[in-house]
Amino acid sequence: MIDINWKPDKNSSVTLYKQIVNYIIREISTGNFVIGTKLPSQRKLSEMLGVNRSTVVEALDELKSRGFVEGKGGGGTRIINNTWSLLSSTSKLNWENYIDGSIHKPNLRTIQMVNKLEYEKDIIRLGTGEPGPELFPQDMMSKILNKYSNKIKSLGYLEAKGLLELRKILSQYLKNYGINVSPASILIVSGALQALQLISLSLLPPGSRILMENPSYLKSIHIFQSLGMNLAGLKMDNEGIIPDEISKNSGKKVNTLLYTIPTFHNPTGIVMTENRRMEILNTCESYRIPIIEDDVYRELWMDELPPMPLKTKDKNGNVLYLGSISKSLAPGFRIGWVVGPEHVIDRLSDIKMQTDYGSSSISQLILAEWISSGFYTEHLEKLRIQLKHRRDKTLEILSENFKDIALWNIPKGGFYIWLKLKCNISMNKLFLEAIKEKILINPGNIYDFSNNQHLRISYSYVSNSDMEVGLKKLSYIIRDLIKQEDSC
Amino acid sequence: MIDINWKPDKNSSVTLYKQIVNYIIREISTGNFVIGTKLPSQRKLSEMLGVNRSTVVEALDELKSRGFVEGKGGGGTRIINNTWSLLSSTSKLNWENYIDGSIHKPNLRTIQMVNKLEYEKDIIRLGTGEPGPELFPQDMMSKILNKYSNKIKSLGYLEAKGLLELRKILSQYLKNYGINVSPASILIVSGALQALQLISLSLLPPGSRILMENPSYLKSIHIFQSLGMNLAGLKMDNEGIIPDEISKNSGKKVNTLLYTIPTFHNPTGIVMTENRRMEILNTCESYRIPIIEDDVYRELWMDELPPMPLKTKDKNGNVLYLGSISKSLAPGFRIGWVVGPEHVIDRLSDIKMQTDYGSSSISQLILAEWISSGFYTEHLEKLRIQLKHRRDKTLEILSENFKDIALWNIPKGGFYIWLKLKCNISMNKLFLEAIKEKILINPGNIYDFSNNQHLRISYSYVSNSDMEVGLKKLSYIIRDLIKQEDSC
Repeated sequence: MIDINWKPDKNSSVTLYKQIVNYIIREISTGNFVIGTKLPSQRKLSEMLGVNRSTVVEALDELKSRGFVEGKGGGGTRIINNTWSLLSSTSKLNWENYIDGSIHKPNLRTIQMVNKLEYEKDIIRLGTGEPGPELFPQDMMSKILNKYSNKIKSLGYLEAKGLLELRKILSQYLKNYGINVSPASILIVSGALQALQLISLSLLPPGSRILMENPSYLKSIHIFQSLGMNLAGLKMDNEGIIPDEISKNSGKKVNTLLYTIPTFHNPTGIVMTENRRMEILNTCESYRIPIIEDDVYRELWMDELPPMPLKTKDKNGNVLYLGSISKSLAPGFRIGWVVGPEHVIDRLSDIKMQTDYGSSSISQLILAEWISSGFYTEHLEKLRIQLKHRRDKTLEILSENFKDIALWNIPKGGFYIWLKLKCNISMNKLFLEAIKEKILINPGNIYDFSNNQHLRISYSYVSNSDMEVGLKKLSYIIRDLIKQEDSC
Repeated sequence: MIDINWKPDKNSSVTLYKQIVNYIIREISTGNFVIGTKLPSQRKLSEMLGVNRSTVVEALDELKSRGFVEGKGGGGTRIINNTWSLLSSTSKLNWENYIDGSIHKPNLRTIQMVNKLEYEKDIIRLGTGEPGPELFPQDMMSKILNKYSNKIKSLGYLEAKGLLELRKILSQYLKNYGINVSPASILIVSGALQALQLISLSLLPPGSRILMENPSYLKSIHIFQSLGMNLAGLKMDNEGIIPDEISKNSGKKVNTLLYTIPTFHNPTGIVMTENRRMEILNTCESYRIPIIEDDVYRELWMDELPPMPLKTKDKNGNVLYLGSISKSLAPGFRIGWVVGPEHVIDRLSDIKMQTDYGSSSISQLILAEWISSGFYTEHLEKLRIQLKHRRDKTLEILSENFKDIALWNIPKGGFYIWLKLKCNISMNKLFLEAIKEKILINPGNIYDFSNNQHLRISYSYVSNSDMEVGLKKLSYIIRDLIKQEDSC
């Protein structure tokens, strides 16, 4: 255990948590804190440094995400690495001084590694949330490109809200979900993630509170937190968010907003029931809490159609609805959409113009052709069958290899199985051990930072045979760790 | 003149300037301030409200950009409109309360109108900074799409820095400009504008100072200002930025960065000379000021090759270099690139992944084919000839119609003629009168808010015949206004 004879300067213009981050990095780089050193508990640190515990948590979060420390559930925090970040401060002009104080937080360390390792050769990606290459409808794409090749007369900047033709087509298409909107209430974005960034830049004052399911995909990105907003996780049962959680967590004095993935939730796969949807809508209306409904998995149902979107029942413009083809066709288009009250869409499109002058016109033109030609619907029918096969096969493999060490849900659509390990092992160790065996997993703690024992398994990306090899190996690694850590 | 018996609350959590904005909007919406009402001078307002003049200026800037007031150079500020913004606050759930406190500033009112009006039928766009539809190489595009149609095997997410194949091709291509970098030092972005947004989110602490040419394209967007950075304009002569201006304006206590368009500057067309480039580089190095070199017009030289980029001589990783095909091929690809020290590119790509998971894969694949097939180079040769014709024709039209009322430069490349009117007229009035005649102009005051008498004429977009009709009509409108305002 180390002793700390230093306190942050409360009169400095640098925030307290940042001072703590910088102090600890300094101590690592000078060699005072060596790898393996255990940091005092959060409570002790907050005493030693004379700051709130939440400040300590924020500093440790950043140190974790930058790869300097690892927090093993229950067991405190250890210094684990110093090369990655320290390496980058050797340039002659000290860009790091600039980066240090800048606005956007870095990705979580685990996600940075995932983003890199995905492109390693021969790696089996058990957690990747995108349709695998074999599911791409190459024939249809080829037909569309051929048909379209002499139709592109020019490729200028488009209207601020995106290609009008595509918005008209979407306005028609959305009627399938009971959503009736004009093209002027639709904004084309570069994927649903960009919609979230635009919302955080254009609609929310810093200090706003974002309610979300716990766990949530949202926790794994820093869109809102980087701009000074706070996330609050809401408990779920198997029907979705528990409505009481909203009233409990709605900030009285701050702007509050609900982000939800009601259909085939990422990462748990839960589908919010019809009744629950009405309860959530009503609760939010009575608390005047706007809703972002992220509905990118809707098309990927298997056994039965999911309930209609919240947006369908939204009479008062309370819901911003996000859609995308990244999960249902291909992420490489980088096309999604936001649907909402026209003046809110106006505001978002104005900021989008200042961000990137619109999304790829080529992608938009080709997507318009995909939907209007009927190929998109045809593809979805095939995709659902293929995904169902993959899901069933994956469930079979799990039954054969994980019955004694894990529990899991049976998803009715989407990509994800939320695997819960029965024994307590270090998820970070598991992640690193799996990499050694050329297996890439998405550990559950990127969706919920509290110590948890989950993995997000995605059956959308790898082939059935890779899934079998990968999951088998993974089960061995888990069994080894259980033995090593004697944690069962 | 109106009297104001109200003062902002200095203890409120709402910033002073925002309180002033809200107060004035309130007074307009309740009818206390009617259209045409003249506001007191900035000096008087700051006395009446008990705030610094800079706070008043910030409030007036926002009111201008939201279309509530117009500041006619010299003549004070008037209430001009209240519909656009007031209209948008009628929804049941008050999204406006959220928008009001949010981070990103709205576009300038003039630019919002330009963005909308560009898609009106039969409008002549004299200021549009993109290649016109007739300049798009439709034949080549068709060949590429045909050839490529059965080559797309899948369209997944790409590596964080963008398609490796494209980065390899660019790494080769950039050698033409004396820039030697590996693909790992290149980040593919959705146009150079997105690069600026990523830089402002990832590299700069709030409060940083951005030096730039005055006037500058940068002034017309709010990327940096929205995130709490300040712009400072540097004087230019016909060789580019005057080096002394950098030392004069470098903040001693804040992070400072230089943004420059040294080649075919937007909007003045100026080319920074070889000597001046070395002076600017050296000055910035001695003051440890990093440089963003925006070089998107480089390929569009006409009479002779421009000097090599600043980046070519950058030995210490001081320069982030921005390129794009939006001006030289087509903006609809939404593809550009940033070149810089690898650890800075790592940081930018990490934030890009959190912003939109990368740019369109389709655009990147097709662009790679464009460059590697040699079609891009072939197209550039043709484009230069066509642009030269358009420039010469435009200069001819100007000589015939503007000799007595304006002065202008002869650009050696790029898109722009920076037209200076000899007489003092309201640029806002000119903008609106021109719209009545179906002519869309880019008034110079969006690039330099101080009262100026410039227009940015772009010869890239309209046909020669439209240019002739448009400029002729414009000269009549200007002559009329000069008479009306008796300002010569």
